[in-house]
Amino acid sequence: MQEIKIIDNEKKKEVKLPENLVFGKTFTEHIFEMDFDRNKGGWQTPTIKRYENLNIDPAAMVFHYGQAIFEGMKAYKQVDGKIALFRPEKNIERLNRSARRLCIPEVEPELALKAIKELVKIDAEWIPEKPGHSLYIRPFIFATEPCFGVRAADSYKFIIILSPVGPYYPQGFKPVPIMATDKYVRAVRKGTGEAKAAGNYAAGLIAQEEAKKEGYSQILWLDAIEQKYIEEVGAMNIFIRFKDEVATPALSGSILPGITRMSVIELLKDWGYNINERLIAIEELFNAADKGELLEIFGSGTAAVISSVSKLKYHDREIKFSETEPGELAFKLYDELTGLQYGKIEDRFGWITIVE
Amino acid sequence: MQEIKIIDNEKKKEVKLPENLVFGKTFTEHIFEMDFDRNKGGWQTPTIKRYENLNIDPAAMVFHYGQAIFEGMKAYKQVDGKIALFRPEKNIERLNRSARRLCIPEVEPELALKAIKELVKIDAEWIPEKPGHSLYIRPFIFATEPCFGVRAADSYKFIIILSPVGPYYPQGFKPVPIMATDKYVRAVRKGTGEAKAAGNYAAGLIAQEEAKKEGYSQILWLDAIEQKYIEEVGAMNIFIRFKDEVATPALSGSILPGITRMSVIELLKDWGYNINERLIAIEELFNAADKGELLEIFGSGTAAVISSVSKLKYHDREIKFSETEPGELAFKLYDELTGLQYGKIEDRFGWITIVE
Ligand SMILES: Cc1ncc(COP(=O)(O)O)c(C=O)c1O
Ligand SMILES: Cc1ncc(COP(=O)(O)O)c(C=O)c1O
Repeated sequence: MQEIKIIDNEKKKEVKLPENLVFGKTFTEHIFEMDFDRNKGGWQTPTIKRYENLNIDPAAMVFHYGQAIFEGMKAYKQVDGKIALFRPEKNIERLNRSARRLCIPEVEPELALKAIKELVKIDAEWIPEKPGHSLYIRPFIFATEPCFGVRAADSYKFIIILSPVGPYYPQGFKPVPIMATDKYVRAVRKGTGEAKAAGNYAAGLIAQEEAKKEGYSQILWLDAIEQKYIEEVGAMNIFIRFKDEVATPALSGSILPGITRMSVIELLKDWGYNINERLIAIEELFNAADKGELLEIFGSGTAAVISSVSKLKYHDREIKFSETEPGELAFKLYDELTGLQYGKIEDRFGWITIVE
Repeated sequence: MQEIKIIDNEKKKEVKLPENLVFGKTFTEHIFEMDFDRNKGGWQTPTIKRYENLNIDPAAMVFHYGQAIFEGMKAYKQVDGKIALFRPEKNIERLNRSARRLCIPEVEPELALKAIKELVKIDAEWIPEKPGHSLYIRPFIFATEPCFGVRAADSYKFIIILSPVGPYYPQGFKPVPIMATDKYVRAVRKGTGEAKAAGNYAAGLIAQEEAKKEGYSQILWLDAIEQKYIEEVGAMNIFIRFKDEVATPALSGSILPGITRMSVIELLKDWGYNINERLIAIEELFNAADKGELLEIFGSGTAAVISSVSKLKYHDREIKFSETEPGELAFKLYDELTGLQYGKIEDRFGWITIVE
């Protein structure tokens, strides 16, 4: 594995975190950067340097053909002062799966993990210590070659930047209203939905804007083929708690395999729940609700960890839960996952990586 | 309409076009750039300046969420020395349709056309004069706001750059082998397929790479739902000439509405052909070929204008045409379209805009 070249780890900026951290608007002082050049044999020197603007050709292929992927994870300041990452190897595996789908060169997993750790260590003062706060880590790779040919680029940048973030819901763990749509689709099997491809997110904005206008905070996506089955909600996977079962949509090829989703499934199994990955028709939710057998709905994802749903609208029907109290299981999972992340609960699954 | 501010139109670089112009690798000396800032009331001063690298925050949303669209058109040096654009207003309309789909602010069509004309005039010496050569024009818009929130950005850049290009097929109008696939899909109705969204192109690279390995130069995409109907081929629309009909896939929501496609349809109507936009099952092609009723297949697009197909493979079946001679109708259309573009034929449809 290559050594990481530290060009600049000096601390010049005073670490002053705003009282209310808006998600993803504050960035730390340093950046990890590694260039790929096919004509120079692949990945070049991994470097850590000062965070500054990039100098990029306007013909760089990322602007034209969207060859770009990313990851999202967090570093937590634990109760004993240690810095923890949550299953970082899973994010790196997914980064490389996304890379393969988009014809982007893969990165060496050990080097990527070392880069994350080194960068977090250098900017450790930026990890906020208040409850529910953390340092969001954003690794991403994009095509830099200046060329209009529609083909995989010959040069790329792999970058990691850091952003201190507050709790996703500043008012506390408050349930959110969501809306299903059949007017737009996010992804289709055999497409890029199971990759963290930049273009997937741009595709979903319009539906999200329309939902916001109607007072709903996220879109519940349906499958693109039959437009019958639920897939995921905003940048979260979705879980349904029925009377005798917890269910989540099976990974069909158009759903992002969330690391939080995977962890929720493992926790529920460990706790003895009847948890199934399967097709879930939106109709099934309304039928179960009518019979009083739909107990709660929640989303899972790195940003919010667990997000309880207050109501779900689809066409002219609506399922309502409490607007103030999160679902019981949602709350229990939130407590357990954040407990593990902040080191309040013993790491019995080996999910925590300490940044020494 | 705003005045375009010319910061730099000086000619410093000697115009030296390489003998063999590789598509999209050579760029001219100037660039059009206009920034959008929602907090400053929208689009800022339109400017023409020297072509140089952009200075962009690594957190700019384009790198993460792919909010980027583009257009592609050409300026031709006509036989009488005038500079011509081909239906540029159609490209600008499509740019704004793409913008709406991706929650990108629209540009004023008159200003966009003026920007294209001004820039082409300043860099007019870069228009190659050899047969089949032209100046490729690339307008594009992407999100620049540094933020990790998944929402439409508050700031953008609208840029136009120019690239002198040789004929798409340097060896002359030679038919190309194509391959249909049901392993990957490009787009699905209600998604972004009918927009020129950056992410659509990254999504198709892997199929194209696999086709290349098997000796085919482009992928023929099938519809994402039933995987039965042909949609488009590479960055071209597709036309099938049957014994008594010319057919092209109807715009179903997942197909890019090509300007060349539109022009081919209008020409064929004008010439009295039986031309239909409709569903075309891939099976229908093989059946017609078996009966000797499939006369030719060709693609249409700005880059190659018209591209004749030498063979079409799907699973273990193959339809073969001549490997050396383009189809009769493909050739006739190529001749007519390039004739109009280079001013050899009278502009009876009003498709040509002269850059004065
Ligand atoms: C589309 C989408 N679905 C689901 C998730 C949840 O994945 P994870 O739990 O790994 O954060 C994310 C966020 O990463 C996402 O972007
Ligand atoms: C996906 C796709 N289809 C078709 C076309 C053809 O469109 P046009 O004739 O406007 O160049 C293009 C190229 O612009 C394209 O990118």
